[in-house]
Amino acid sequence: MQYAVIMAGGVGSRFWPSSRKSKPKQFLNLIGKRSMIQETVDRIAPMIPPERILVVTNDSYISLVKEQLPDIPAENIIGEPVARNTAPCVAIAAAILNKRDPDATMIVLPADHYITKPEKFRGILQAGVEVAEAGPNLVTIGITPHRPETGYGYIQMNEKPSFDGTNPVHEVKTFAEKPDLKTAVSFLESGDFLWNSGMFIWSARTILDQFYTHLPAIHREIEAFDAASDRDLTKAINTFYHGVMSISIDYGIMEKAETVFVVPGEFGWSDVGSWMAVYELGEKAENGNVAADKNVIYQSSENCMVRMHSDKVVAVVGLQGVAVVETEDTLLVCRLDKAQEVKSVVDQLDELDLSTFK
Amino acid sequence: MQYAVIMAGGVGSRFWPSSRKSKPKQFLNLIGKRSMIQETVDRIAPMIPPERILVVTNDSYISLVKEQLPDIPAENIIGEPVARNTAPCVAIAAAILNKRDPDATMIVLPADHYITKPEKFRGILQAGVEVAEAGPNLVTIGITPHRPETGYGYIQMNEKPSFDGTNPVHEVKTFAEKPDLKTAVSFLESGDFLWNSGMFIWSARTILDQFYTHLPAIHREIEAFDAASDRDLTKAINTFYHGVMSISIDYGIMEKAETVFVVPGEFGWSDVGSWMAVYELGEKAENGNVAADKNVIYQSSENCMVRMHSDKVVAVVGLQGVAVVETEDTLLVCRLDKAQEVKSVVDQLDELDLSTFK
Repeated sequence: MQYAVIMAGGVGSRFWPSSRKSKPKQFLNLIGKRSMIQETVDRIAPMIPPERILVVTNDSYISLVKEQLPDIPAENIIGEPVARNTAPCVAIAAAILNKRDPDATMIVLPADHYITKPEKFRGILQAGVEVAEAGPNLVTIGITPHRPETGYGYIQMNEKPSFDGTNPVHEVKTFAEKPDLKTAVSFLESGDFLWNSGMFIWSARTILDQFYTHLPAIHREIEAFDAASDRDLTKAINTFYHGVMSISIDYGIMEKAETVFVVPGEFGWSDVGSWMAVYELGEKAENGNVAADKNVIYQSSENCMVRMHSDKVVAVVGLQGVAVVETEDTLLVCRLDKAQEVKSVVDQLDELDLSTFK
Repeated sequence: MQYAVIMAGGVGSRFWPSSRKSKPKQFLNLIGKRSMIQETVDRIAPMIPPERILVVTNDSYISLVKEQLPDIPAENIIGEPVARNTAPCVAIAAAILNKRDPDATMIVLPADHYITKPEKFRGILQAGVEVAEAGPNLVTIGITPHRPETGYGYIQMNEKPSFDGTNPVHEVKTFAEKPDLKTAVSFLESGDFLWNSGMFIWSARTILDQFYTHLPAIHREIEAFDAASDRDLTKAINTFYHGVMSISIDYGIMEKAETVFVVPGEFGWSDVGSWMAVYELGEKAENGNVAADKNVIYQSSENCMVRMHSDKVVAVVGLQGVAVVETEDTLLVCRLDKAQEVKSVVDQLDELDLSTFK
């Protein structure tokens, strides 16, 4: 049976002030009609019902998950007491699913990505599931790049697919770290490099075996967890997280595994990395300005975005590529091509004794 | 005896959203510690006590004047039922003062200018008063220009002063309209052109005589006003304003009078024409940003200004020369060098059914 594991532990500060420590990006409605984690669940709903969705999140967000995803059974929500990157998260989800269903196939998905073509996306996942269920295969989803992005890792695939079909599946040749611009251009031109999306498909059994081989320290913690989880699941989770090393699944397993497959796809994917991405995905009115309520006036302004908490009348005069984001107690005015620096603002809040606004 | 006549009828929209139809620029604290009209009164206080100050304003601002200038006697506040430019305002003030004191000298001052060197300014006024009291002389105040400004009218003066002293007074050679940049540069280089400040000094008797000569239609209305004002001052004012033509004192008298004198001066004058002027006059912190509360964070931003109504935490990221102005129910984000376009925003409010925000 197929299961989804939604990784929702992020505490990202790039969407300050809308995202706050108490309510990060995945719980916000940045683009669609629902929050990013809700849309993640909606997107896979035709394949995976709520009772087969596991959400791994920070302890402190459990109530937010319950509130936003009321159909997901409480026992499917795993609260991490501390952040330990993606490998421990995948390991504990695999252990839990393996105990429930020795034939479990896991679709591992970040909670904070945006996808404009969900049907196409599900076709890609389906192709991945078939390969993951055809043998002890590790499958990852690769995005066909359309610009020389330097902010993502890349996956190089064999030209000839290993599995044919509507969505062919290729063997991975190599994983590449975030490239410089020149390298990114050559990746784009080569045609066999894909963006690493951070989405994976494998059976619980297969990935646990991979932990045994490549991350034996984590595998030992998982064995202890397995032995203790029936008695007191929450206690076992806490013990596991406090004992386990912090490492990414990419670095810990994917780059070391002998054989990995990738399903290349183009399904309108965005990892929504900054306010710039929110601007780009927003519906535009005139002059490239994001459509807004009638109480927003763009005067001699282009490519701007206004997101207000209040119903104030807003005028943006003579600006190009600027975002205005208001919350109940904060206001951000930010050049979109400097949106990465929002992180620095959040860092400064502590120094300025404004940490309650983080 | 000397009197001041403060012209406070403006309804300017250039300081939206801080200025609103119900509370325009002269009643706002844009730069100093008090409102512009309060600072205008404070500035001349060492020369003119409140009981010798006349304020001419729009009917609807009378209560604002009373509130902000409680020391000015109620009978010194003249409410205009309709705006008729500066000549009728000067005429009615002259008529009222002439009746009170046949030896009245009037110092006519706009309510919404800013002056950084008030003592120097009072010296200039004093020189003007002496000339105005030495004969039937019209005196205007000219500002020594320090940039080729195209937004002001200019006054050309005779090189040799007609009256010597600490602040010499020159005869005016000619008045010039707002020049183009090339002309403004030549004015600046010539050394004998001054900015027309819109400040005047003359005796009430002299200016009434000038109305008789150059604006006889207004003079006739003044005679009717004079005859009626003792019975019912308010009614007489209303009758006068509804019957009188609209014309500026510059165009109607100054440019036509045979002899006019000018006191040139440099006293840190600004007519505070837009948010840009407010930015320029504001105290600066680092990177040319206007000093703000500690809850304002300027990140990679220069020459910006934040004026908040609320105590929101504000971050300005990656911006150059931008003003952020919040009021209770509005927000302006404006490139300072496009600050003139704030007027267009105000014009649009009607079309958008937002006229209550004007």
